Amino acid sequence: MVLTTRLAKHRARLNQHLRRLLPPAQEVPLTLHRAMRYSVLGGGKRIRPILCLEAAAVFRRPPAGIAELACAIEFIHTYSLIHDDLPALDNDDLRRGRPTCHKKFGEAAAILAGDALLTLAFEVLARMRRPAPSPHAAIIRELAAAVGTRGGMIAGQMADLEAEGRRVSARQLEAIHRGKTGALIRASVRTGALFAGADGPSLQRLSRFGAKLGLAFQIVDDVLDVRSSTRRLGKTTHKDAALGKATYPAVHGLEKSQRMAGKLVQEACDDLKPFGRRADTLREIARYLLTRAA
Amino acid sequence: MVLTTRLAKHRARLNQHLRRLLPPAQEVPLTLHRAMRYSVLGGGKRIRPILCLEAAAVFRRPPAGIAELACAIEFIHTYSLIHDDLPALDNDDLRRGRPTCHKKFGEAAAILAGDALLTLAFEVLARMRRPAPSPHAAIIRELAAAVGTRGGMIAGQMADLEAEGRRVSARQLEAIHRGKTGALIRASVRTGALFAGADGPSLQRLSRFGAKLGLAFQIVDDVLDVRSSTRRLGKTTHKDAALGKATYPAVHGLEKSQRMAGKLVQEACDDLKPFGRRADTLREIARYLLTRAA
Repeated sequence: MVLTTRLAKHRARLNQHLRRLLPPAQEVPLTLHRAMRYSVLGGGKRIRPILCLEAAAVFRRPPAGIAELACAIEFIHTYSLIHDDLPALDNDDLRRGRPTCHKKFGEAAAILAGDALLTLAFEVLARMRRPAPSPHAAIIRELAAAVGTRGGMIAGQMADLEAEGRRVSARQLEAIHRGKTGALIRASVRTGALFAGADGPSLQRLSRFGAKLGLAFQIVDDVLDVRSSTRRLGKTTHKDAALGKATYPAVHGLEKSQRMAGKLVQEACDDLKPFGRRADTLREIARYLLTRAA
Repeated sequence: MVLTTRLAKHRARLNQHLRRLLPPAQEVPLTLHRAMRYSVLGGGKRIRPILCLEAAAVFRRPPAGIAELACAIEFIHTYSLIHDDLPALDNDDLRRGRPTCHKKFGEAAAILAGDALLTLAFEVLARMRRPAPSPHAAIIRELAAAVGTRGGMIAGQMADLEAEGRRVSARQLEAIHRGKTGALIRASVRTGALFAGADGPSLQRLSRFGAKLGLAFQIVDDVLDVRSSTRRLGKTTHKDAALGKATYPAVHGLEKSQRMAGKLVQEACDDLKPFGRRADTLREIARYLLTRAA
């Protein structure tokens, strides 16, 4: 199957599950449920849950119940976007081509909708159908650590804010990007494999793949902020420079940043060699992310 | 043992565990870790975790690992206070006698510190030491639902904000209070009992106790906001009326509110009858909460 067809199929199925797992829009508190559905269902590439599904598929036909895991990851990702966009953080008005959650529903609802999606993610994880021995606890630990303050997403968000307007070293920059974007992408791949019962060495290999891909993904994001247009990306571009954000183009220049991302993706794909053809889709996704325009 | 001594002992032990489970203050991101520790360790009655420990003690000597559960509950409670105090929500400057988290560390750090505490709670829950059959998944589901938007804490917070300046019926008011305060208190009691291996009927009984106590607790809170002073409570009083909040004194009057809380606590204690002396401490705590001045 052509990659874009495969991705579109994944997305359609994921959207069905997300719709099912979100609280109904007609149920009180209305504003909150609408805000949650608006932010989750308003587009998005679903890269993280797709990586999770494809990492599981390296080992076996994805077992029933993995949809819950994939959706929990997307809920976590969406919560982080909603809070990131808040006036006190990145103060963004546009996301996925539409007004951000707080622009549409107000700041209080946006803060609570983010909290609610994070909570829903863990609730859905604890509800996963899965035959024993159950990896519930391991998966929840894994994702909570990827979100958390010790090298996880929240640590990256905080370091990113603190770096605004300051000079950062290449090393600090890498740590910020590994936290704010890399940790959840790595965990998406790892938990998919865990769910499918991957052995230790395979898990290690996929961790390396996920970590490199996650870093490359954020570098490409930095590059797109300079190169692309707001209309094309669906979010305000050229904001990084205006805010004095720590980015790869700012520290390494545009050309070198692009080369670095390319090299990381190549190395990430090399990590998958022992899986042979079974990891073809993961490799294709990695290369696709490198060339994405939006 | 006298109740106040018992509570003080619980608090001292809980504070040790909380200190241990929080990220170190010297570890980056410094601001975030300091904000988390500031908010969790800056006082607090630890009512919810104590209720959890005492609910377990009805059934057996609290098993190793229950400290993690109790601390996770306190992390969830503290995250909710931090986000509640934000300018977009209740806009409070004072909490437990000190500046609120966003006053001290800024709004961005406060939002992320709340997110991080909520995440840490689930991570700690997934790490609980406990012999099989493990109630991990059931406990995580229980707490996530108590936090969530379907009758849980976040639903109550949202309904509370939406009710500002509006007339609410006695029934709507009760639903708000059961959500914003009752759900987590009920879940504290229930998960303690679940952890200790309580049977179905006992769990039902403790649920009723917890639900009534939780509602009574918020009614007393409403009354204290009218009756007490900022100095005594450690948070700004007389704010409910100024904000046009939906409160029991506003809807039912001060005297009747106090009577309602008393009646709920009495009924809650009656629910515990079949446990005999084993539930004495829970009953004492319930009566103590009715008379608390802070």
